[in-house]
Amino acid sequence: MDKFNNIGLIGREGNPQVVDTLLALVAFLRARGSFLVLEQKTAALISSDLPVCEREKLGACCDLVIVVGGDGSMLGAARALSVQNTPVLGINRGSLGFLTDIAPDEIETRVAEVLSGHYLREERFLLDVVLVRDGKEIARADALNEVVLHRGASLRMIEFELYVDEHFVYSQHSDGLVISTPTGSTAYALSGGGPILHPSLDAMALVPMLPHALSSRPIVVAGNSNVRVVLREYSGGQPEMSCDGQIHFAMQEGDMMQVQKKPQKLQLIHPLTHNYYETCRTKLGWGSRLA
Amino acid sequence: MDKFNNIGLIGREGNPQVVDTLLALVAFLRARGSFLVLEQKTAALISSDLPVCEREKLGACCDLVIVVGGDGSMLGAARALSVQNTPVLGINRGSLGFLTDIAPDEIETRVAEVLSGHYLREERFLLDVVLVRDGKEIARADALNEVVLHRGASLRMIEFELYVDEHFVYSQHSDGLVISTPTGSTAYALSGGGPILHPSLDAMALVPMLPHALSSRPIVVAGNSNVRVVLREYSGGQPEMSCDGQIHFAMQEGDMMQVQKKPQKLQLIHPLTHNYYETCRTKLGWGSRLA
Amino acid sequence: MDKFNNIGLIGREGNPQVVDTLLALVAFLRARGSFLVLEQKTAALISSDLPVCEREKLGACCDLVIVVGGDGSMLGAARALSVQNTPVLGINRGSLGFLTDIAPDEIETRVAEVLSGHYLREERFLLDVVLVRDGKEIARADALNEVVLHRGASLRMIEFELYVDEHFVYSQHSDGLVISTPTGSTAYALSGGGPILHPSLDAMALVPMLPHALSSRPIVVAGNSNVRVVLREYSGGQPEMSCDGQIHFAMQEGDMMQVQKKPQKLQLIHPLTHNYYETCRTKLGWGSRLA
Amino acid sequence: MDKFNNIGLIGREGNPQVVDTLLALVAFLRARGSFLVLEQKTAALISSDLPVCEREKLGACCDLVIVVGGDGSMLGAARALSVQNTPVLGINRGSLGFLTDIAPDEIETRVAEVLSGHYLREERFLLDVVLVRDGKEIARADALNEVVLHRGASLRMIEFELYVDEHFVYSQHSDGLVISTPTGSTAYALSGGGPILHPSLDAMALVPMLPHALSSRPIVVAGNSNVRVVLREYSGGQPEMSCDGQIHFAMQEGDMMQVQKKPQKLQLIHPLTHNYYETCRTKLGWGSRLA
Repeated sequence: MDKFNNIGLIGREGNPQVVDTLLALVAFLRARGSFLVLEQKTAALISSDLPVCEREKLGACCDLVIVVGGDGSMLGAARALSVQNTPVLGINRGSLGFLTDIAPDEIETRVAEVLSGHYLREERFLLDVVLVRDGKEIARADALNEVVLHRGASLRMIEFELYVDEHFVYSQHSDGLVISTPTGSTAYALSGGGPILHPSLDAMALVPMLPHALSSRPIVVAGNSNVRVVLREYSGGQPEMSCDGQIHFAMQEGDMMQVQKKPQKLQLIHPLTHNYYETCRTKLGWGSRLA
Repeated sequence: MDKFNNIGLIGREGNPQVVDTLLALVAFLRARGSFLVLEQKTAALISSDLPVCEREKLGACCDLVIVVGGDGSMLGAARALSVQNTPVLGINRGSLGFLTDIAPDEIETRVAEVLSGHYLREERFLLDVVLVRDGKEIARADALNEVVLHRGASLRMIEFELYVDEHFVYSQHSDGLVISTPTGSTAYALSGGGPILHPSLDAMALVPMLPHALSSRPIVVAGNSNVRVVLREYSGGQPEMSCDGQIHFAMQEGDMMQVQKKPQKLQLIHPLTHNYYETCRTKLGWGSRLA
Repeated sequence: MDKFNNIGLIGREGNPQVVDTLLALVAFLRARGSFLVLEQKTAALISSDLPVCEREKLGACCDLVIVVGGDGSMLGAARALSVQNTPVLGINRGSLGFLTDIAPDEIETRVAEVLSGHYLREERFLLDVVLVRDGKEIARADALNEVVLHRGASLRMIEFELYVDEHFVYSQHSDGLVISTPTGSTAYALSGGGPILHPSLDAMALVPMLPHALSSRPIVVAGNSNVRVVLREYSGGQPEMSCDGQIHFAMQEGDMMQVQKKPQKLQLIHPLTHNYYETCRTKLGWGSRLA
Repeated sequence: MDKFNNIGLIGREGNPQVVDTLLALVAFLRARGSFLVLEQKTAALISSDLPVCEREKLGACCDLVIVVGGDGSMLGAARALSVQNTPVLGINRGSLGFLTDIAPDEIETRVAEVLSGHYLREERFLLDVVLVRDGKEIARADALNEVVLHRGASLRMIEFELYVDEHFVYSQHSDGLVISTPTGSTAYALSGGGPILHPSLDAMALVPMLPHALSSRPIVVAGNSNVRVVLREYSGGQPEMSCDGQIHFAMQEGDMMQVQKKPQKLQLIHPLTHNYYETCRTKLGWGSRLA
């Protein structure tokens, strides 16, 4: 496995614990002789003489980026860093997450292990979503967790049509539709009643939000599917397309969301102790071993 | 049973079929010798020399109000007419509804039966909801179907606390909460996974919308419960309280929604052929008799 | 409130911890001067010179019966003791239950309080179920939690028709149907996706088990409803009617289960600290207060 | 595409319509000059002088087998014929199925098309399940739809542990677990709340049946996973392992079900008009196109 020497650091804003963890991390890494670069907004959180770089360019000068925050912080970093295949490691500020699975008090042991080449490397795919109006691309974005078409402010349901690989699937009257990656299947899609997709699965889950028809159920399609959703009708409100709950675009009647797997992947680094199902048991409250 | 002579008419706007049905209804009722009054907006739909009256005052001069439209039209009429206990009959413009259960081509038979005193009378309770800010009532409204606290435009979940009769129930992180009457249990609450409550039941269903925690389930409480929901946190968007998806109030952190049964009831008139479970079978697709 | 002097004791068989708790309870109650009677099977668990009585007759000589075990032990006691309106108090052997809400280490404080007249008394209704074949009653039983029609050993679904108060509701092709009281709504019915019914609610939930049709949903009907289920078809296996998962009857094609509320109620005694929603939060994992 | 000349015929027993369709099919195929072979039990349904062969050997002498019946008939044929990669075509006796998608009145057009080489060929994988007791294989079977561990006759839940690829996933207290292929995802697994898996997906769904814990959700794992389920506890009843609801094995405490994808696949033949999502819309009641 690769060893990592040039380390980029990203920290979530607005959280004093994150600052503490960042400072501890900087001290630890400096003592170890790593070369460090701070993401621009993160540099504003701690006073230091370390070099600073924009998030988008961090991948060019680092062979590992460490994100300190929650799973939400990881989403933004993943979208920016997947472009250059930069490996990303997550340190959680509080309770462990699905993506940020090192606790602050494990920095000395787990991060040291990772830096010396003992780690698990996992590829997570992202979604590439294009918003098409009158046949023209008007917006484009990425999502690590999910792309959502939703009704916006109004409580009135929207009507849309779903197509998979040129096949018409159904028309639906609902609050919206979640198109989730395996990574996102334990996030918002799960609240909507979607299944848990193991991270190794090459598939997307299409999960209706409060559908009007009792016959609507989550559908899982192959990861290389071309999923298209055409907004047909809404009354009041302002329907939106959202990526990871962080990027939003207003939609109009007739607009089409086109969702596909992105060629670039997130390179997610885990300590060797990482165990997906153990995280599920802890975070979702599943039963532990009987005998 | 009472016979009905003074008939008020309300029609849904923006639907040519409703105009046709209204005209047929006026001709039929005039020929029968009924005294007719048109609701103000409805009078603008058809040209006639009939007396006109505001919706809120219709109850004072009519002993029956006929609503032509869908279940949605009935909601608005119910909120206005329940105040004076005015009986309401629904004629559906297209497919039959749960509340509007006479088809346009049944006017001559079913409406005649009702007018001559052959009908079923059913009471449906409404919810009285008060919005409290800093200890003061800042808004008040009614709902026949449901009161909803929802996240508004933002996809970020909201956090709120639920209390029933002074008992703390739970805090929840979700898209919102539906507080539904039995009447509303086959509407939006059903999309959220709520149970169907028989109309005769004196109960409310509390149905979480896309809850973050897997342990959240619909709860049914007694009809005379005092349900309070306190909005604790949201990030972005503009959470709202909505009644029947038709009346909306913006909410702030700390605001409390207080929901109780209204003393006045909707007096819903059905033809003698009305059968609640048959409507369920038709509209929800339940299986018909085996043998 | 009544004070209790003549105390009956019932303990779950096959659990050494129950024996310990029974012995502690006997010592405590004797020291307090209560008159004690042991249920017959319970007498076999501990050696003592206390008077012994059959479960069914315990109500005639006691003004309170204390059950030591889990919620399951309470079910059997409730069915036997509701006949004579005997108050019942539950002591849980391990984690607290919905019905057995005193912990073994709270005996001295909570039981003492209850005995001296400081307690909450709650009525819980039971179901009376009759199995009818060829127009004749062939079996009759009670249930505190639920009555279930289920497919028995075979994995083949069964087909049945549901009637409520003489109205045909639907025919269904499924693994079975759970007819639950509010007390049972946090037990097996909840596993089937049924709603939680507050204990004060006078209602039953009808919850389909793995229904073939996507349109099948839980229905809540008034407590005084007459619910009838007619088994139409099955292939292989031996469908059964079960009460509280403890009493079973084999069913044949054409058999009818008739379910109604029993006139007698369980008189359930709680310590003053009892809080239904707190039990829900603890046992179901609901979120605690935010602010 | 291959043309088919040697045709095997399998018909469902106990259905007069199947006999009519078989006779029409034999007449049509003979007129066309095909060489026909009847499966042994099917030969007993119609009197003819055609050669007869056991189901298991049909694959050796035919280049296509036509199954007349429902989806259930197809399951048995698929398990027998997948061994030799024999293509299978389904004719439904009544309403169309997911696997049997030619109607009896389409025989002349659709079957003719298929025989002359105009068809869609789809591979569907089967599951290979081994039952292990005390470290030894005691039974082995195949399933096209699903393998189920279930509680058997007793209403008492069972407890088991789930492992995927040597990783412990969870222990569960429930009525059982459905391990479903994409083919089975629209059958029993769907009744249990499982997601719909597109047939092209290389994945299995693990769907809990009436789980005790609210945190239990369907999980989708990669098709090449090694799924193991160890039965830990049950009280009463006789837990079973079942394949496609047609093959059953009694299980004991400590028994392990081991489920993997079978190397051989079902070669499913469809007419060119076949459209998976259209079948979903028809059979599941999904909404048709809006505009």
